[in-house]
Amino acid sequence: MKTIDSSPKKDGFRMPGEFEKHTGCYILWPERPDNWRFGGKPAQKVFVDVASAISKFEQVTVGASPEQYVNARYMLPDEVRVVEIDSDDSWVRDCGPTFVKNDNGELRGVDWSFNAWGGLVDGLYFPWDKDDQVAQKICELENRDRYRLADFVLEGGSIHVDGEGTLITTEECLLSEGRNSQLSKEQIEQVLKEYLNLEKIIWLKRGIYLDETNGHVDNILNYVRPGVVALAWTDDQNDPQYEISKECLDILENETDAKGRKLEIHKIHVPKPILITKEESEGVDAVDGTLPRMEGDRLAASYINYYTANGGVIFPLFGDPKDEEAKQKLAELYPEREIVGVPAREILLGGGNIHCITQQVPKA
Amino acid sequence: MKTIDSSPKKDGFRMPGEFEKHTGCYILWPERPDNWRFGGKPAQKVFVDVASAISKFEQVTVGASPEQYVNARYMLPDEVRVVEIDSDDSWVRDCGPTFVKNDNGELRGVDWSFNAWGGLVDGLYFPWDKDDQVAQKICELENRDRYRLADFVLEGGSIHVDGEGTLITTEECLLSEGRNSQLSKEQIEQVLKEYLNLEKIIWLKRGIYLDETNGHVDNILNYVRPGVVALAWTDDQNDPQYEISKECLDILENETDAKGRKLEIHKIHVPKPILITKEESEGVDAVDGTLPRMEGDRLAASYINYYTANGGVIFPLFGDPKDEEAKQKLAELYPEREIVGVPAREILLGGGNIHCITQQVPKA
Repeated sequence: MKTIDSSPKKDGFRMPGEFEKHTGCYILWPERPDNWRFGGKPAQKVFVDVASAISKFEQVTVGASPEQYVNARYMLPDEVRVVEIDSDDSWVRDCGPTFVKNDNGELRGVDWSFNAWGGLVDGLYFPWDKDDQVAQKICELENRDRYRLADFVLEGGSIHVDGEGTLITTEECLLSEGRNSQLSKEQIEQVLKEYLNLEKIIWLKRGIYLDETNGHVDNILNYVRPGVVALAWTDDQNDPQYEISKECLDILENETDAKGRKLEIHKIHVPKPILITKEESEGVDAVDGTLPRMEGDRLAASYINYYTANGGVIFPLFGDPKDEEAKQKLAELYPEREIVGVPAREILLGGGNIHCITQQVPKA
Repeated sequence: MKTIDSSPKKDGFRMPGEFEKHTGCYILWPERPDNWRFGGKPAQKVFVDVASAISKFEQVTVGASPEQYVNARYMLPDEVRVVEIDSDDSWVRDCGPTFVKNDNGELRGVDWSFNAWGGLVDGLYFPWDKDDQVAQKICELENRDRYRLADFVLEGGSIHVDGEGTLITTEECLLSEGRNSQLSKEQIEQVLKEYLNLEKIIWLKRGIYLDETNGHVDNILNYVRPGVVALAWTDDQNDPQYEISKECLDILENETDAKGRKLEIHKIHVPKPILITKEESEGVDAVDGTLPRMEGDRLAASYINYYTANGGVIFPLFGDPKDEEAKQKLAELYPEREIVGVPAREILLGGGNIHCITQQVPKA
């Protein structure tokens, strides 16, 4: 694997939309007991469900630590490939590479710097050195060269693109103190445009209420296809989420994308507030420096945190009446994909959801 | 990856000769300080030389532990792929899969049981559980199904095949007490025939003098092509090696292969005896249960321990006058391959040589 000292824009590479064709998908196996209750066992079952669901549509590779390799291999179905990828936790959306492609069928990785969502300012655990190597390791596994930005912190979950020059993100995350506070908003725009080959960046203000990632966009908005987005929503004006979603809606309604299109916006309602139970809280090891999981804390539940696979959409179920409504809405938005719900409370308890634990490899 | 409950013979798969086309080659990164002097640093340099030499001819993948991943990636050239494969040591010839193929371009792995060359009887270290997982891990990386023989111990270095129904091995190794002593010679033949799709097994008595693997065939004989073998030789009748090599020669001269051919036998002279120096011995951690490296011990040096790559032959140099003679002999035997010597004393100090640290993936 070569580390390329240029930029995707200069080399004619762009980041495709997640809805474009994939060759496969990566997932990292959960195990750290200070984030996943009961030593990760309940989460592992749900990760198996997600990997199984996606593998109906495309090749899934699960990366596990040496210690968990045999267990992961045992628990996962045959059709899922299991390889060793040692990491600090299991959020490959955020620590994995962002793949870019050109028109000649070549693929390369963009390997951003990763600092556990805020480094020493408000990061969620320490250290994060193994996570920061994951993008490189996946590029090696895929036999793809990479661009490495050692001085620019970005997580894949903080951006969504339409593949046609537009990126949507949040100020809450990209302008956070723990990431690139040495750079101005304009400088950050410049890096994104250069490394993802973009013309236009749409800035939302905030992500889902209480999202511990400093408001990753992938929990509040997803690109269905160019010109069409899905937005997390609530009609309950007493819920702090209402003001946040309304603010997003206002921005989106007044924006155009890189191609000059107005955006078609579809609302998907969040479930009722989901709180951590006493049992759930007590199942997590207390470790200094890792975000605690306290009884009664509200989780950042949103159906928007779904994965778009080749012929399917894999979305989280919360055991809420809104589950069915979300499924129907997704079926309307994706008439040519199969909509598959996976009960995902255990992923939510770890701080994210299905989109956060997946990373697509675009078809070259 | 599926584990197949059948056999290669039943399914129409055979083990190709090493001289047939490859898609690539695996190597494991050395690091254990109780086998490699100075924390593995001198050996790592030589492994880089071997990987670099082979990568001129075919894709090389190096598997490293999580702890050594970054260092391995840094030391190896860009064109070598580096992935994580946690193991107990770095002899992928012996713990890796034996690939078999069929006529439809399909490839599968045979995953023998591995017990560190003799288990609790006379194995070289303890434990060996991670080594025993390497074959499976490489099958996963290659996305190939496997046959698993949990009850049959075999190392790849203990066999050579012509790809046309003949296998050559040694009684010293395959009939050793630490491997399959519950099985008769005939039962062992039966397993080999079933899992490598063979008709004929030629049994040599012993391997190279003092070879710690119980006389692996790959240090004393190699298949150049069907009907043609190279044999480690010495003319010094006072060297214990003479009697061993002469015994092999006598057997080979009186054998025919699966196709009924007499064998063409080419002698390649071993270098002068190579002994472990005081400095070399002192650089190795003393660990109970690991074979010690004592000053003055004779090493099992042989030019036969070479790797046959797509367009090349990578063979060990010992700084001996015989180096040049070996090169010339190999050039005669392989007129269409480039002959590349790599100074390999550091590998020899660890107990093997270039063939032992490599494992080819045949072209499907």
